[in-house]
Amino acid sequence: MRYVSFLHNDKPTLGVREGDAIRIVGEEALESLLARGVDLTVHGRTRSGQASITAEGLTFLPPLTCPPKIICAGLNYADHTKESKYEQPDYPTIFFRVATSLVAHGQPLVRPAVPDSEGLDFEGEIAAILGKGGRHIRPEDALAYVAGYTLFNDASVREYQFKSPQWTVGKNFDRTGGFGPDLVTADELPPGVKGLRLETRLNGKVVQSASTDDMLFDVASLISIVSRAMTLEAGDVIVTGTPSGIGWARTPKLLMRHGDVCEVSVEGIGTLRNPIADEIKR
Amino acid sequence: MRYVSFLHNDKPTLGVREGDAIRIVGEEALESLLARGVDLTVHGRTRSGQASITAEGLTFLPPLTCPPKIICAGLNYADHTKESKYEQPDYPTIFFRVATSLVAHGQPLVRPAVPDSEGLDFEGEIAAILGKGGRHIRPEDALAYVAGYTLFNDASVREYQFKSPQWTVGKNFDRTGGFGPDLVTADELPPGVKGLRLETRLNGKVVQSASTDDMLFDVASLISIVSRAMTLEAGDVIVTGTPSGIGWARTPKLLMRHGDVCEVSVEGIGTLRNPIADEIKR
Repeated sequence: MRYVSFLHNDKPTLGVREGDAIRIVGEEALESLLARGVDLTVHGRTRSGQASITAEGLTFLPPLTCPPKIICAGLNYADHTKESKYEQPDYPTIFFRVATSLVAHGQPLVRPAVPDSEGLDFEGEIAAILGKGGRHIRPEDALAYVAGYTLFNDASVREYQFKSPQWTVGKNFDRTGGFGPDLVTADELPPGVKGLRLETRLNGKVVQSASTDDMLFDVASLISIVSRAMTLEAGDVIVTGTPSGIGWARTPKLLMRHGDVCEVSVEGIGTLRNPIADEIKR
Repeated sequence: MRYVSFLHNDKPTLGVREGDAIRIVGEEALESLLARGVDLTVHGRTRSGQASITAEGLTFLPPLTCPPKIICAGLNYADHTKESKYEQPDYPTIFFRVATSLVAHGQPLVRPAVPDSEGLDFEGEIAAILGKGGRHIRPEDALAYVAGYTLFNDASVREYQFKSPQWTVGKNFDRTGGFGPDLVTADELPPGVKGLRLETRLNGKVVQSASTDDMLFDVASLISIVSRAMTLEAGDVIVTGTPSGIGWARTPKLLMRHGDVCEVSVEGIGTLRNPIADEIKR
């Protein structure tokens, strides 16, 4: 089942995508459903008979607007680590994003009004959304914790990512984390989203293309390893890392500027599309 | 006014410390009051006439159990940067903690059951709690955004902090972030907590001692700089960094183990006291 969050009559609304239409399921947000332990593979079906609307022109919301944690894996594809001039660590490189950095499908990724940045960089990624929480989760059990998957554009302000030893600020400017549009329940995808093609396009041109098989720490490993340190919660988001091709590593650099359009596509999950817009200076 | 969060009849309860007693103010949590824009310098007074209890034997809770963001500054005292073998960046080194890492005054800081860690390291710090949110906050306006201050022990699992380029995991093991006990409203302290002595003691022995004047980015600067990147929210916690003296930089190393007791004291704010306990292996 494919869930989408959007505004309907100005209210946050949850729907299920059925072909070109979206059938309204209710007003309870996905994070609330997940926190209550609701099984998303059946929830949408039990709420049949409600109105359907067209997806066209819809104002999407992030699948979850305020997840308990947004756990991002860096350096999780060997060729991206190499282009980023890092030694490949033998442990996941984890950083957090916060909810203020999220932006929905269709909404602009905002290039911040800071004087010392050339532009935003793209990072197409897959995000796993947890359906239940736990600690010390074994790798062989980990995929049972995933409710579904969606797409992420971990757009980065590189100059700020590297102003100090920690990437946090460059990864957390407001409205730089493209997120959505569909939360596709895990039963509709290969286990651990293995063997899928991930593609990022800037203004229609392919800039990243890789197989999810090239992740160094797969979804099950990430969940298991992180859970040895911290309690995972239903609604937590695990962003699984980007492959090579980022604009910062190119000569000349290829950064996103006002008016550009960036898309992240994964077969079976869909396409996350965001225009880029300069922050309106105050 | 000094607010404390604690369990009373098994319910999360808010109180105001008055000498040795704590006067019960109600059940609404500080994060909820702050999100509603309540002025903490008067709130406790308007709820007078309620029962007082003794602080002794009380089960404290973190001042806020689930802040919107926990924004930590690393490398914010020059001598600590030096002992940590980092070049001093000219921009704050920011990382996030998540709520699952918090632990209240009096509760054990948990040394995780991981085979490859010698022990927890202490980091005594001051935390500012924001009373209102904003973006692009000017330094000269920033202190007006602070509702109050409390103490933090940013206990770190160093081996995990340095397993990858990002410190996140080593800073976010469950129950490693000592937090509290009192949220002291800003009006009771020097502006920006300037000129205060910060002291960390391990089993009664002073292991860190510094003046808050030695912070490289003071409270106002941290708020202003971070707000240029991300929207700050009421209830956000800004953890201001630790001075030198950490156990990891000593020869031999001085790490915290089961049965130890760590205290962080700042004049006017109080003392955060946590025993250390090994995680119970499952």
